[in-house]
Amino acid sequence: MYEGAVQDLIDELGRLPGVGPKSAQRIAFHILDSDPADVQRLATALTEAKARVRFCEVCGNVAQSEKCQICVDPRRIDSVICVVEESKDVVAVERTREFRGRYHVLGGVINPIDGIGPNELRIRELMTRLQDDTVKEVILAMDPNVEGEATAAYLARLLGSMEIRVTRLASGLPVGGDLEFADEVTLGRAFEGRTLVGS
Amino acid sequence: MYEGAVQDLIDELGRLPGVGPKSAQRIAFHILDSDPADVQRLATALTEAKARVRFCEVCGNVAQSEKCQICVDPRRIDSVICVVEESKDVVAVERTREFRGRYHVLGGVINPIDGIGPNELRIRELMTRLQDDTVKEVILAMDPNVEGEATAAYLARLLGSMEIRVTRLASGLPVGGDLEFADEVTLGRAFEGRTLVGS
Repeated sequence: MYEGAVQDLIDELGRLPGVGPKSAQRIAFHILDSDPADVQRLATALTEAKARVRFCEVCGNVAQSEKCQICVDPRRIDSVICVVEESKDVVAVERTREFRGRYHVLGGVINPIDGIGPNELRIRELMTRLQDDTVKEVILAMDPNVEGEATAAYLARLLGSMEIRVTRLASGLPVGGDLEFADEVTLGRAFEGRTLVGS
Repeated sequence: MYEGAVQDLIDELGRLPGVGPKSAQRIAFHILDSDPADVQRLATALTEAKARVRFCEVCGNVAQSEKCQICVDPRRIDSVICVVEESKDVVAVERTREFRGRYHVLGGVINPIDGIGPNELRIRELMTRLQDDTVKEVILAMDPNVEGEATAAYLARLLGSMEIRVTRLASGLPVGGDLEFADEVTLGRAFEGRTLVGS
């Protein structure tokens, strides 16, 4: 539809997740209107991120050297590992400021339809980290959906034989949510996990 | 939140129109998972588009040389010019295959709030193209909103003194639309512009 370079840009942008043909066109024209320095900064950020970012050899989180910032931080508690699906989840948990332990990023969830079994995830690396007796608790913080629950169940069974406390994040009503609009599974979990007032 | 290069990429992506913080993060992680060659292609498309795309010196459409593909096409009719706001509109009109004349891209609409008056648009260039008597009709194809109508009214007045037919695109119900859900202005226009059945 457009001449060479514009159409190339629209095509490339259209391959990004969540960017449809209309957005791709809108972004492309924004680029054409932008300052060349801004465009160069974006192009550099893309190639730099790809070139420089790797994954922490301990926990699998995104990192800029062999180990990520959290793994090298001496102030973190070594006895608790929070197992999450993706690096994004590390950021989500960090934002709560509730957790001071270490992380382990699986790199996904068990999903037979997509051909992802336990061997495709960083489960072996997790087991290696649990070899010495430093870790006393593993918190399974997968997403509360079918794949997340299945992965948590698999890990719970695997860790069951070890002298480690295995916990899961609480399920229940989201804060600020509305009981009336909660789905029945969430409301059911909120009942199941109800806590004593004043305790 | 993230380490250097990842956060830089998220920040840069977040500056694009229609890309919020969540999308920026999603795209950034997609980039980290992508093939380096794909990322390089996107980065190149960005800088190439910025470096190579300019605007046609005749009509103002996006182009890769001094003139755009439409202006250099000898098969187009020289006697009709369709005036549009943006290059995107050229593509939209081309898609209809209804129009075989030339274009003129204004580069926006008159919008005093944003400080855009007639001098900020390519109106002088349009008047220059109308100097010789080649052009017999000017079709004003601005968006049917307040700014578009105001710009069209301004141009219609400017062209009124010339021996040129000035037309506007028909307003009415969108094809496939629903009379019941049409806003009253559109429905009013559809009545005003009603056509004889069988004519």
